[in-house]
Amino acid sequence: MTEANYYSEKIHGPHQYFELGDFELEYGITLPNAKLAFKTQGTLNPAKDNVILFPHMWSGTSSSMEIFVGEDRPINPNKYFVIFPGQFANGFSSSPSNTPAPFNGGAFPNVTIGDDVRAQHRLLSEHFGIKRLELVLGWSMGAEQTYEWAVRYPDMVKRALPFAGTAKTTPHDYIFVRSHEDALKSDPAWNGGFYRDQSDVHVGLRRHAQVWSVMGLCQDFYNKEAWRELGFTSLEDFLHRFWEAYFAPMDPNNLIWMGWKWRHGDVSRHTGGDLKAALGRIKAKTYVVPFSRDMFFPPVDCEAEQKLIPNSEFRVVDSLQAHFAMFCLTQSDRDQIDACIRDLLAEKVD
Amino acid sequence: MTEANYYSEKIHGPHQYFELGDFELEYGITLPNAKLAFKTQGTLNPAKDNVILFPHMWSGTSSSMEIFVGEDRPINPNKYFVIFPGQFANGFSSSPSNTPAPFNGGAFPNVTIGDDVRAQHRLLSEHFGIKRLELVLGWSMGAEQTYEWAVRYPDMVKRALPFAGTAKTTPHDYIFVRSHEDALKSDPAWNGGFYRDQSDVHVGLRRHAQVWSVMGLCQDFYNKEAWRELGFTSLEDFLHRFWEAYFAPMDPNNLIWMGWKWRHGDVSRHTGGDLKAALGRIKAKTYVVPFSRDMFFPPVDCEAEQKLIPNSEFRVVDSLQAHFAMFCLTQSDRDQIDACIRDLLAEKVD
Repeated sequence: MTEANYYSEKIHGPHQYFELGDFELEYGITLPNAKLAFKTQGTLNPAKDNVILFPHMWSGTSSSMEIFVGEDRPINPNKYFVIFPGQFANGFSSSPSNTPAPFNGGAFPNVTIGDDVRAQHRLLSEHFGIKRLELVLGWSMGAEQTYEWAVRYPDMVKRALPFAGTAKTTPHDYIFVRSHEDALKSDPAWNGGFYRDQSDVHVGLRRHAQVWSVMGLCQDFYNKEAWRELGFTSLEDFLHRFWEAYFAPMDPNNLIWMGWKWRHGDVSRHTGGDLKAALGRIKAKTYVVPFSRDMFFPPVDCEAEQKLIPNSEFRVVDSLQAHFAMFCLTQSDRDQIDACIRDLLAEKVD
Repeated sequence: MTEANYYSEKIHGPHQYFELGDFELEYGITLPNAKLAFKTQGTLNPAKDNVILFPHMWSGTSSSMEIFVGEDRPINPNKYFVIFPGQFANGFSSSPSNTPAPFNGGAFPNVTIGDDVRAQHRLLSEHFGIKRLELVLGWSMGAEQTYEWAVRYPDMVKRALPFAGTAKTTPHDYIFVRSHEDALKSDPAWNGGFYRDQSDVHVGLRRHAQVWSVMGLCQDFYNKEAWRELGFTSLEDFLHRFWEAYFAPMDPNNLIWMGWKWRHGDVSRHTGGDLKAALGRIKAKTYVVPFSRDMFFPPVDCEAEQKLIPNSEFRVVDSLQAHFAMFCLTQSDRDQIDACIRDLLAEKVD
């Protein structure tokens, strides 16, 4: 499968595109003709006060979080206008895989969570004229974007719901994300990011999937052979048909550039490195929700940040699926996550 | 530095060698002129009943655990005769790095924990005439060997002290050890295990070190910048001068073949896959001692096995150094580990 096939509307559904023009990135490079892909559900009401923003995780697209929206789901599209914004390097928005020279492939500039959020802010203000958000929520790198929103635009965000992610990337996160990137780069076919087709780097993609399988789930998941309930017949079967199959069609550069963003996420750059001051800016009613066995974002790391957020609560989703609870592979995961969204939306916020 | 330099008595002190002759391995291959390196401290008494066996961990040599022996250390060489046996693929015993064709380098046969323990048993019985051991103890893969000893030769082992290791490798252990191996193999210079000098594979060794740094320690260690106390000035400084420096002089094949052993460790192969029956065989007074933040061998995994061992106790060493508590980099780690050894040696055992 080629990258063109994977990052297509056939697989991910119809997208809209917001033209950012020549977009100056946080690190100084100007990306010409930059674009931000997005999807929406529901209808923006005349007062423009029924908006939920739901950015997506690393490796995802604007379609990744649609499972939480529906008439019988915690976000009802008859009531809310839901925007699923893309992010740079996701394969639909400006990315290594779709940008012309000089910024094609391995020459794509480094992008940050701040760049994503500034682009999203322009979409909301310039394209939709939205001034305030009922809720910003996201998982993993979507949580990083949620924090960036709540710190950067505190008056715009009424409620914030970061699932399984941190406002400042921990050093442990930093090194394991880099080790994931290095697994892709280790394939000679990666060639500094200049390959003809993503499938040329299939060895790197497989290696990357194997490394991901270690921290992406947890000891307990494998001990209990929880993959059986998900329809796999052996550990090896799970490693090939789940992990390798998940990453196989993706573009290595897109994953690497999103990973760079992930590991450099840090809201405290708004306050000269003072995390307490940065999180103290948040005005949103916030639920900080880690997943109990998450090896990427252990609850204790999330709780340390929650304590610095004025109007916040700490909730833990208990799940054997570790970081992947958000995929709602079990009813228990789904019920707990749904409850967090429903409860926060039900909170009265001025 | 070449492999010949690293696996030398200049660095690791004088070794003795026990000639195993043509040694039939568990998987059926016969290794010609096999040898088991070892070191000793203290004097074997005439009754031959003052013996402690202290096998070493993955990546180590017979010198690795000598820090626990001394007149003011928990194992007093004036009282005990301590044998530090080698293991296959450690660079001194028969290994990919020192075996002639046809089993040189990448053609070295797969070896098992059972092969190590059978070789060690021959050393003890044939060379020393030892019939019973006061204590077998070891860390990590040394713990695997300790379990193998206690299950395979239950009447010979009076006390067993496995630190931070399991009797049966968990599936999570299996996949992360394989991912470590793959980091080495990913270097084209590895070339299926046939390279001229270990330093030719330095990129793979560096990559391997980076992957190890993720699971080898823990989130807390990095969050608290505990590397500062160890004399490092930044995270990158620690990654280069500790992790890369540790692995840089080693032989990639030796690490890979020891890793294969690690991930295939399983005492239940003595009882048709029944772990409870295997651990039920143990007659030794046993302390099962995990390290609190160990990401390789979480306490809960060790406790599950401890419950299957008849005359056993469960103790946890609380340490920020995670799996590496055994290096005794802090006084607290040293004190807790020393106490386990002293207490178990003080236990009356028939």
